[in-house]
Order: sequence, then structure tokens, then C-alpha cells
Amino acid sequence: MVKNEALTPKGTRDFLPGEMVKRNYVFKIIRSVFERFGYIPIETPAMERVSTLTGKYGEEGDRLLFRILNSGDFLTGISDDEILERNVNKLKSSISDKGLRYDLTVPFARFVVQHLNEITFPFKRYQIQPVWRADRPQKGRYREFFQCDVDVIGSNSLLNEAEQIQIIDEIFKKLGVKILIRINNRKILSGVAEAIGEADKMIPITIAIDKMDKIGAYKVNEELAVKGISEKAIRELQPILGLTGSVEEKLNELENKILLHSKIGRKGVDEMKKLFDYLTTFDLKVDPVFDLTLARGLDYYTGTIIEANSTEMKIGSLCGGGRYDDLTGVFGLKDVSGIGVSFGADRIYDVMEKMDKFPEETASTTTLMFVNFGEKEEIHCLSLLAEIRKSGIKAELFPDKVKIKKQMNYANKKNVEYVALVGEDEMKNGLITLKNMKTGVQSQITLDELIEEIS
Amino acid sequence: MVKNEALTPKGTRDFLPGEMVKRNYVFKIIRSVFERFGYIPIETPAMERVSTLTGKYGEEGDRLLFRILNSGDFLTGISDDEILERNVNKLKSSISDKGLRYDLTVPFARFVVQHLNEITFPFKRYQIQPVWRADRPQKGRYREFFQCDVDVIGSNSLLNEAEQIQIIDEIFKKLGVKILIRINNRKILSGVAEAIGEADKMIPITIAIDKMDKIGAYKVNEELAVKGISEKAIRELQPILGLTGSVEEKLNELENKILLHSKIGRKGVDEMKKLFDYLTTFDLKVDPVFDLTLARGLDYYTGTIIEANSTEMKIGSLCGGGRYDDLTGVFGLKDVSGIGVSFGADRIYDVMEKMDKFPEETASTTTLMFVNFGEKEEIHCLSLLAEIRKSGIKAELFPDKVKIKKQMNYANKKNVEYVALVGEDEMKNGLITLKNMKTGVQSQITLDELIEEIS
Repeated sequence: MVKNEALTPKGTRDFLPGEMVKRNYVFKIIRSVFERFGYIPIETPAMERVSTLTGKYGEEGDRLLFRILNSGDFLTGISDDEILERNVNKLKSSISDKGLRYDLTVPFARFVVQHLNEITFPFKRYQIQPVWRADRPQKGRYREFFQCDVDVIGSNSLLNEAEQIQIIDEIFKKLGVKILIRINNRKILSGVAEAIGEADKMIPITIAIDKMDKIGAYKVNEELAVKGISEKAIRELQPILGLTGSVEEKLNELENKILLHSKIGRKGVDEMKKLFDYLTTFDLKVDPVFDLTLARGLDYYTGTIIEANSTEMKIGSLCGGGRYDDLTGVFGLKDVSGIGVSFGADRIYDVMEKMDKFPEETASTTTLMFVNFGEKEEIHCLSLLAEIRKSGIKAELFPDKVKIKKQMNYANKKNVEYVALVGEDEMKNGLITLKNMKTGVQSQITLDELIEEIS
Repeated sequence: MVKNEALTPKGTRDFLPGEMVKRNYVFKIIRSVFERFGYIPIETPAMERVSTLTGKYGEEGDRLLFRILNSGDFLTGISDDEILERNVNKLKSSISDKGLRYDLTVPFARFVVQHLNEITFPFKRYQIQPVWRADRPQKGRYREFFQCDVDVIGSNSLLNEAEQIQIIDEIFKKLGVKILIRINNRKILSGVAEAIGEADKMIPITIAIDKMDKIGAYKVNEELAVKGISEKAIRELQPILGLTGSVEEKLNELENKILLHSKIGRKGVDEMKKLFDYLTTFDLKVDPVFDLTLARGLDYYTGTIIEANSTEMKIGSLCGGGRYDDLTGVFGLKDVSGIGVSFGADRIYDVMEKMDKFPEETASTTTLMFVNFGEKEEIHCLSLLAEIRKSGIKAELFPDKVKIKKQMNYANKKNVEYVALVGEDEMKNGLITLKNMKTGVQSQITLDELIEEIS
């Protein structure tokens, strides 16, 4: 039995080579699309100061932060009375001043402020790194998971929104994952709150209608009532959320009727119109849907909000984001607007694995293996290997002279595509016996022919 | 002034886009060489159980572990008396059961035991991930840094040692970094300890002579005396450490004289001979040196040890490793031998940066920028952009219509290679004005010509 100390901590996992190759395939596509749109990479450290992280993710976020115990005598300066109070929240601030990053957005905002003089605005950055949350682990939810964020900060242009939607479309097209892209605008939601006479309750209204997909309209209305939204307002909200028709029809209905007297609401409609104007000039695979019930959880969004979901598998959103007007404000840099979306690499992987979307080449890790027949043959094979590797082929010589069956078994398990056999005969006639492991076909060929066949 | 909460924690750092591109260049070369030798990637979580990590790195290592505070009420089950004892070492075991990985070797050993049924031996893996140490930060030493490890476990063949030296040679050749590769064998060192009559003091002898480079022979001898090595033994050690001649001469001298009566010592000589036999069949750029004073700090090495240093810049080793016969033993899996080397990505970066080794292409991040002349031009440029990106070129349209000077300034700072100007004239005649930012040359060309020029 494996001892506890030989196991990963609860909620975390290792990635085996087969998984790594597939994950790298996903990251590679995401990265290459980000770069083709002019976004450039940054990385931030796993640890941030606790003061950087707290107060940015709401109460739940603060609770789910992983905190790092201060080095050395962490109790120095803490009185006995303070300890015996057992106020865990207070105490943890005293004994831990660093935490693991919870997402990539807050570290990015901190980065922009710290490196203000080293970057040029608009700053288009992408960042692919793990984040950590002390959530209760469950199927498909891990305590360490990877986010792929793409943000531009310092530009108000809706062209950025449009291009980020194009990025989403392009990435999922390349991955072969079928999605629905929904967009909305927080200003329209503010306008709606105004229109139904509950302007000051915009946040609880947003949080409630964000659950429409999960709990349905009946439960949403219940929650709205609990949050103190008047019966009249809830009644007026129904036809608005249920608006049908084309994007243009919906926007016109909002502009000319529902939001006629809401300045912020009409601003939102204007932004949405301009955004759809851009989108129609693109050759998108998936036409984004204007969904008035899309709300997104986070407080800091102020304009366009975006979400993409799988249409083939029931799972949380694969990608989401939006515009924020003052994220760096908390770090002392005011009036810098940004927009960004985040791709959940782990969920995307899960969908692709379940729906069998990975191309065949992601099954193999090493292309060619030489069987080891002993010392004399080893030296001969090593010089062949040098040539083969020079041409970029991933190749190896089995390191020990053991039974051929065992060596072939290794090649099979490692999913090696070709096996080369070079014994006494082959050394004499200068040929290589090459076996294609998939078809089983075996042939004697020259080194050049082998390189050509495999390349 | 930037607030504290807008700064990375002490000893950690952000990577800006310019640095990222260069770092990725280093990682890409390392990864591609590893793969061409049949090594396959794995990743392990940032956190490990404290029980996995402690007791593996000596006392200093235990002290330098970053520990994660348990979630929730971390004081539950700890009595007032226990707390008031203020025994920080004991207490930290009670309030933190996870830590950040300290290197990649111990997590790899844990991985092998945990996934024993999912992997095939010999298991050739590589792993490129950050590690964390609560060391006092200083120039060139960080609390978060990247290791690139390549190990094969479950094979005793010296072919593995030979190939790992080939890997080192190949990587630094490709990076353009001049190195000296030194090798030795722990069995020879054991034999030497035996030969001078201090067989039981092999570890302190190893630790002392490991410092030869840094502190010189005089201080090493002082340390040996302090550690209780007899004067006679120290005297006898001098000519051994000072052996000169070719590899063959040295090995013969050891085999036939110095280690004549040491079984383990002669085993080490045999291994070294076999290893050099392999190495002479390779076409190495750098011939490895047999250095009897190479010792390596870690306890767990049992055979070949390897180290590579820059010959152009004074800095710690760029790469090091060796054979270990029982690393997985602590996790319950006995008698599995492995060998691995670790590349220090941060130091390699520092050498390349200081010695100006990065190729020109690592200076640029985005290749082409379109100037934004306004709404009409935007739409036109977006369709051109779509074609340009399809051919894989990294390209962007400046998102806001601001002064051209400001846009050109952005392009300059971002190190964009080409700027495209498409105003009313160009829209009419269907051409693009393309400016090469390095040469300053400007020309009017078609879209196809542009793609050809830039690709």
C-alpha cells in the first residue's frame, strides 16, 4: 500500500506524460492565437502579499486564499493574550503575510502599477499560469488549476471587445470544440435596474439573474423578492429578460422603449451596437448571442461581459470575462480601463477528452525506439541515433540489453510509433529493420529512407 | 509612490514580455533536446504534503520550506498549553500540513511511487517547473526559481549517464553558452576515503572537497582536520586530488595503485571507464573532464556525478546531477536506480543576458502593427488583418484613433518590426504602405507582397 506521504495533497494532481502532451496541445493553440492578435506574455510569482490579494474577491475569496506561514519564528511580536483569544482570522494576518495567487487578474493589475514605467499603453498581455483556491475538492474541481488570461488595459475602444470575441471564436474553432458565445453589457443591466425602479439594487439583481441557467426563472424571482426587490419591479423585469427577436430588434426595443429614460442604459445599447457592427465584419464561425440574462459574478465589470459555453457537454463556462473600468484603482492608479477574458484550461481539457477531440498526434510522445541487442550494437545504434536526432526526430535506444519482448512492451506502453531493430545482419548490410507499430508492417531500409519515412 | 501592496513579495519577481520571450527561447531549446532523447514531460502540483518533503533535504532544507497554513480553524485540536509553549517547530507541524515544492527530484520520486502502475520502466521523464525556497534573497538568488530536470529511473545502464552528458553538451551548444563539463564518481570518492583510512568519514570528506573551487586547498584541509580526519590521511589525500594526466592515465593510476585494495573504488573506476568509452563515440563539442575534486552536495548520489559551469562568467553551476540508487526507498519502493541532471534556467538566462547570447529574433514580440486612422479605415484594416493572421503573422491594429506620433511611439517601445499605414489613398488603390522599423525604409505594396516580405 502506498503511504500517505507518497500521495499528492487532496484536491491536487500530477500530470502524466499522456496528459501533458494533450494539455500542451491546448496551451499551444491558445498561446498562438493570443500572439497572432498582438498580445505578449508576462508571468507573475506564485506568491503575492496578502495585502495585494485580500478584499478583491469578496468574502468567499478571502476565505479560500491559501496563505503561506511566515518563515522563522512566526509568533514573534504576538502576545499570549492575542493567541489565546483564538481569533483565527486576526491571527492568520499576523503569522502569514503572503498567499498563493487566486486568479490572474488581480496580480495583473498589481503588475501594471508596479511596472508602470516599463510598459506602454495600451498594454496587451496574456498570462498562462496556475492559480490556487482552498475550495472543497470535487469531481472536476481542483485546488490548483490553470487559467489562460488575455487582457488589454489602457484603451477604451470597443475594437478590443470585438477582437477578444474573435480570439474566443478562433481558439475553439482550432480546438474543434463547439461553443455558444453570449454577450451582454453591465450598463444595460444598470439601465434595466433603473427602468424597473430599483437602480440601487443593481448588484443583487445581477447576482440573481446570473443564476437563471442553473436554477430557472421561478427561483430567480424568489431570490429577487428575498433581496427586497418590489413585486412590481419583478413583474416588470420578466418581459425584459424574455425579450425575443434579432439582436437589432432587441437593441431597438431597449433603446426606444425600455431604456428610453436611462442614460447609462442607452450608453450600454450604444456600446452593444458598435460591438455588433465590428463583429459583422468578421468571418466568425459562431455568431455571438445577445443574452440579457448573462450577468457574470464579479463586481468589477462595468461594460461588455462575455461568456462561452460548450454546446456538447454540460459543464461550467469554458471562458468568460468583460470590461472593467477601475481595476488598478485599488493599487493607486485611477482611470485605466481594461477588458479581458480568461480560458479555463482544465475544463477545456475535460470537454476535449470526453468528446474525443484530441488529434491523433497527441497520443504519441516519442517517435522511434531502437531495440538494444548488446554492447557492439549499442555503439552502432548510437551513431545512427545522432543522425536521426539531428533531423529533429524524437528517438531513443532502450538503455539495457534485456529480453526483446520486454523492450517491445515498453515501446507499446510508451506509444512509440516506430521500432528499429539493428542486429548483426543489419550492421553488416548497413540497413535498419523498421517496424511500424500501428500497422505492424516491417521493412529493411537505409538510414536516409528511415529519416524520410518518419519525418 | 507605489504602495507596498502593489509590489511583488521580497525575493520574487515578475517577468516582463521582453524577458518572457528570452526565457521561452531557453525553455524551448531545453525541452526540444530532452524530447529528442526520448524523455517525456510530467508536472506535479506546487504543493506537496509536508511529510513528503521533510527529512529529504537535510536540516537546512527543512528550515527553508515554504509552508501553507491549514485552511479553516487551524488552531482546532491544539491546546492552550501547546500554544503557549511557543515551540515554533512543533507548532508549525500542527498548523500546516502542506508545503511548496523545494526541488523537482523528491516530487518525482513521490510521483513514481504513486503512479507505479501507470508508468513503464525505464521511465524517462523531464519536468520544467518553479520551485520555492525561503532563502535570504540576494543578487541572482530568488525565492521562486525554475528548474529543468531530466531523469531516467529503473535502468542501471551507464548509457543513461552518457546520454545525459550528450544532452548537456547539445543544449549549451544550441544556446551558444561555453561550458566546462566535469564528471566524477561517488564510488571513487568512497574508495579514496577507504584508501586513506577514513572510510567512515566519506560524507564529511565529500562535503569539504566540494568546496575546493570556492575556498582553495588550504581551507579544505583545515575543514578536514576540524572534521576529525587524521593528519596522515589529509597528507595522503593531497597527491590523489592533485592527480594529473589524461583520463586514461588517471583511471589507471587509481585502479592499479591508489584504489588497488578498495572494491568499491575499483567499481567506480570501471563505471568511469565504461562511461568514457561511450563518450568517445559521441561527437561532443566539449570533452568532459574527469575531476576528482568534484563531489556535489547532496547525500543521495551513489555513482556518477556531473556538473557544468560557465567558462565565460563567474557564477554557480549551470547544471548538475548524478546517479542515485535509492531515492524512492523513502516512499516504500526499494532498489530502483536512477540518474538525472537539473538545469538552472535562471542562471542560464543571466549568463546569456550578460554575455549577449540571445539571438536577434528574441527581441521582438509582435511583428506588425496597423496604424489606426479612424472608423472607416479600421474596418478595412480588420479584413486585411484577418488574412495576415491566417498566415501565422503576429499582427495588431492600434485600438484607438490617437495621434500617429503616439501610435508610432507604442510600436517602437513594443519593438514591433513593421508598421502598416492604410489611409484614404491606400484604401483607394488597394495598397499598403509598409514601414520597416529597423531600416526606416517605406514602400507601397500589395497584401500578398506584404505577407511574403514578413513571413
